[in-house]
Amino acid sequence: MAKQITSREENYSQWYNDIVKKAGLADNSAVRGCMVIKPLGYGIWENMKAQLDTMFKETGHLNAYFPLFIPKSFLSKEAQHVEGFAKECAVITHHRLMNDPNGNGVIVDPSAKLEEELIVRPTSETIIWNTYRDWIQSYRDLPLLINQWANVVRWEMRTRPFLRTAEFLWQEGHTAHATKQEAIEEAEMIHELYARFAEDYMAMPVIKGSKTENERFAGAEDTFTIEALMQDGKALQAGTSHFLGQNFAKAFDVKFSDSSNKVEYVWATSWGVSTRLVGGLIMTHSDDEGLVIPPRLAPTQAVIVPIPKPTEELMKVANALADKLKAQGVRVKIDKDEKKRPGFKFAQHELEGVPIRIGIGMRDLEKGQVEIARRDTKEKTSVALEGSERYVSDLLVEIQDNLFNRAKKYRDDHTTEVENFESFKDVIENKGGFVKAFWDGSSETELAIKEETKATIRCILPIKGQKGKDFYSGKDADQVVIYAKSY
Amino acid sequence: MAKQITSREENYSQWYNDIVKKAGLADNSAVRGCMVIKPLGYGIWENMKAQLDTMFKETGHLNAYFPLFIPKSFLSKEAQHVEGFAKECAVITHHRLMNDPNGNGVIVDPSAKLEEELIVRPTSETIIWNTYRDWIQSYRDLPLLINQWANVVRWEMRTRPFLRTAEFLWQEGHTAHATKQEAIEEAEMIHELYARFAEDYMAMPVIKGSKTENERFAGAEDTFTIEALMQDGKALQAGTSHFLGQNFAKAFDVKFSDSSNKVEYVWATSWGVSTRLVGGLIMTHSDDEGLVIPPRLAPTQAVIVPIPKPTEELMKVANALADKLKAQGVRVKIDKDEKKRPGFKFAQHELEGVPIRIGIGMRDLEKGQVEIARRDTKEKTSVALEGSERYVSDLLVEIQDNLFNRAKKYRDDHTTEVENFESFKDVIENKGGFVKAFWDGSSETELAIKEETKATIRCILPIKGQKGKDFYSGKDADQVVIYAKSY
Repeated sequence: MAKQITSREENYSQWYNDIVKKAGLADNSAVRGCMVIKPLGYGIWENMKAQLDTMFKETGHLNAYFPLFIPKSFLSKEAQHVEGFAKECAVITHHRLMNDPNGNGVIVDPSAKLEEELIVRPTSETIIWNTYRDWIQSYRDLPLLINQWANVVRWEMRTRPFLRTAEFLWQEGHTAHATKQEAIEEAEMIHELYARFAEDYMAMPVIKGSKTENERFAGAEDTFTIEALMQDGKALQAGTSHFLGQNFAKAFDVKFSDSSNKVEYVWATSWGVSTRLVGGLIMTHSDDEGLVIPPRLAPTQAVIVPIPKPTEELMKVANALADKLKAQGVRVKIDKDEKKRPGFKFAQHELEGVPIRIGIGMRDLEKGQVEIARRDTKEKTSVALEGSERYVSDLLVEIQDNLFNRAKKYRDDHTTEVENFESFKDVIENKGGFVKAFWDGSSETELAIKEETKATIRCILPIKGQKGKDFYSGKDADQVVIYAKSY
Repeated sequence: MAKQITSREENYSQWYNDIVKKAGLADNSAVRGCMVIKPLGYGIWENMKAQLDTMFKETGHLNAYFPLFIPKSFLSKEAQHVEGFAKECAVITHHRLMNDPNGNGVIVDPSAKLEEELIVRPTSETIIWNTYRDWIQSYRDLPLLINQWANVVRWEMRTRPFLRTAEFLWQEGHTAHATKQEAIEEAEMIHELYARFAEDYMAMPVIKGSKTENERFAGAEDTFTIEALMQDGKALQAGTSHFLGQNFAKAFDVKFSDSSNKVEYVWATSWGVSTRLVGGLIMTHSDDEGLVIPPRLAPTQAVIVPIPKPTEELMKVANALADKLKAQGVRVKIDKDEKKRPGFKFAQHELEGVPIRIGIGMRDLEKGQVEIARRDTKEKTSVALEGSERYVSDLLVEIQDNLFNRAKKYRDDHTTEVENFESFKDVIENKGGFVKAFWDGSSETELAIKEETKATIRCILPIKGQKGKDFYSGKDADQVVIYAKSY
């Protein structure tokens, strides 16, 4: 089973595809660039969703749902936005099919042409701000803190499961505020929330910073990002939170009267994370045996395997232990399949990333023991059956910590400071990872480096008051940035 | 506030629209037939989703996600299905926009025409069964029990919020089985699950039965339905579960080898409920003062109103009580708004259907009491503050029961048996509601009655062995059916 996976060293990209396919996370579909998310992949996303949703609600946000379609004319209203988003998209031109008079199935009915074409939302700022115009009149209507869980479509040319797909699932927060300061604070608060989620739940260390003007969201005045490092040394932008200024309020004429009846444009933020996070999770933790899932997000946290098969006696023990584990809040399953051998099952659970495997065999039981194997280190230990549910709960916490620490060590080991362009190129080409350096703040430098090395500024770090030289231009610099190649 | 709602008697249809709009459940959008689901409406849907999802998982189903788009050619593969669904749909013909050379915003880029048009899923049987072909080889792969939460689009000409919209949210289960019997049992089990959900959670009594051939899902061999009665005497089809036979397996060539290596087509079911249920909930329970939400699905089950305003002293009591209620699992909020008067707040919470309102005022507090008002009957009671959290929990159960019983009484009072066509027409025209009668089983009778009265057979009841006469044709009949006008 595990043999089927290409090793990371041999071909990292194939390794990723193998895990996605063979662990049963996603499949290609008949529609170009769209994937089918299989139960295991969807189960991880569901756990991500549940946790993020709780965090959004704890910070005062409510969910709502806006239309899938956006009238074409809306896109032209915010000039930068249309440049950034509206071009490669699914365009609906007709609303009816008819039988082909030549008898070849169905064809588009030419009489059912839409007066105005609709596009499938690539992001919802335009349709939402068009709605907010009706919802916001007074300062009493603010802040408006709305989140949406939805599917969006961007017509990507090169797609990869989870990391970049034509259709993907995400959440998009869209908030409206009375003051600039409050909107900035909201965008920063969500930035912090995303980082906490990535680190505490995905066990994926992230660097927080803001995007350069070139890398900003189309229509934003400031974009905050969390950037994670994958095992091939490339960065993954894992979540962004945007301060949109008054751009969308002006484009859609959304004004409010303040307490002194002065009429002002509303201040906005938007922010999102997507099923891309599932790709980030896979790439951060998995190994050559298959998927590794951090316990807090694992659909199954522990699997009990009766050895060699689920006899009545073993099932009695397995069921009793499963009940105790469930009572402790552990998501546990018993592998009751009678047709497969234990060795096959072990490889399958390893491939699918179940954090803990509990083997129950007669020989161990006679000694009052079970065998516990952890997925992250592949260590096995014999543990007393009595009280093993506490061992398992504790071990889940330990695995979660270990995965974070391991990923953080990798990230730290692959974060290099450079002082000249030669060593920059060397690091980017050979070692990979993040490069931390001074930047002169100019677009010329940023784009020249991108042109020569394909590395981009992933983010500007929130470091103030330091002075140095830009390693490329040699100019004075006071911004510290992270460069990397990226997904 | 409440004055703004048209009474049911005056204009039922306007009453419904007023509640949707004024209680803040949904808004019209800029896109024809698509609604914006506002936080209150979405909150009810979220609670429905959470409960249904739990019930699906308890019965062994897993969630997955399939593409939004379906290649046009897939639709022609199942002949009945394409007739029923594929005609009025959103058709994607292009994947790019470009700047209008005349400077008027953006236009469709004619060079970005798709080779094959895509349609936005109206339901996902075709794309899913095309996928199942790869997932199913052997009887070991069966049963395959998958559910999807998704948005779908049907280009409806006449739309009403929640009840009939071009885009709606729903779940669609798609299961695959080795035997006909097992597939029928699955469809029946889900039918039962839907009825339980409607009655136990929505407090909406339903009649269970199967559809006539004319009313069946396009591509199904049998459609099981739950039918609810709205307060204007019209029926609402609230959920359907279909036995699909081998139709989709044959259309998409999905076969499996059984344990003796014989190759067979797979048997299928599909089943779904949608945001239409929110419309059903509104129409079943609400009154001329506004929305009434059954406690089990209410986003806020109890609201505490400090009277006349949230002074420090009153807030202390309110917070303590809220904590006790939360500890009992009650979803509670405190209305801390300092700008609105209690009378205004009361009307607002009534309009929004909060099941219980708890008034905390100094005069009551001096007597150690709070005032508790229930939304369903509008009764108010003074209750000792001490222990009031238990009173509230109990009252939530009582309200849930009362709503169900009230709706059931209405339904029973509006279910009439008829023996001739004159009285049938009279009931359908004047009294409304369900008419229970013998049916001769012929399509002629069914369609003639529909033509003359607009009433349709909502379902065939699972009653066997009775004999009677069809009231229309006078022929012998052994099927008992429910007729009604419907949404």
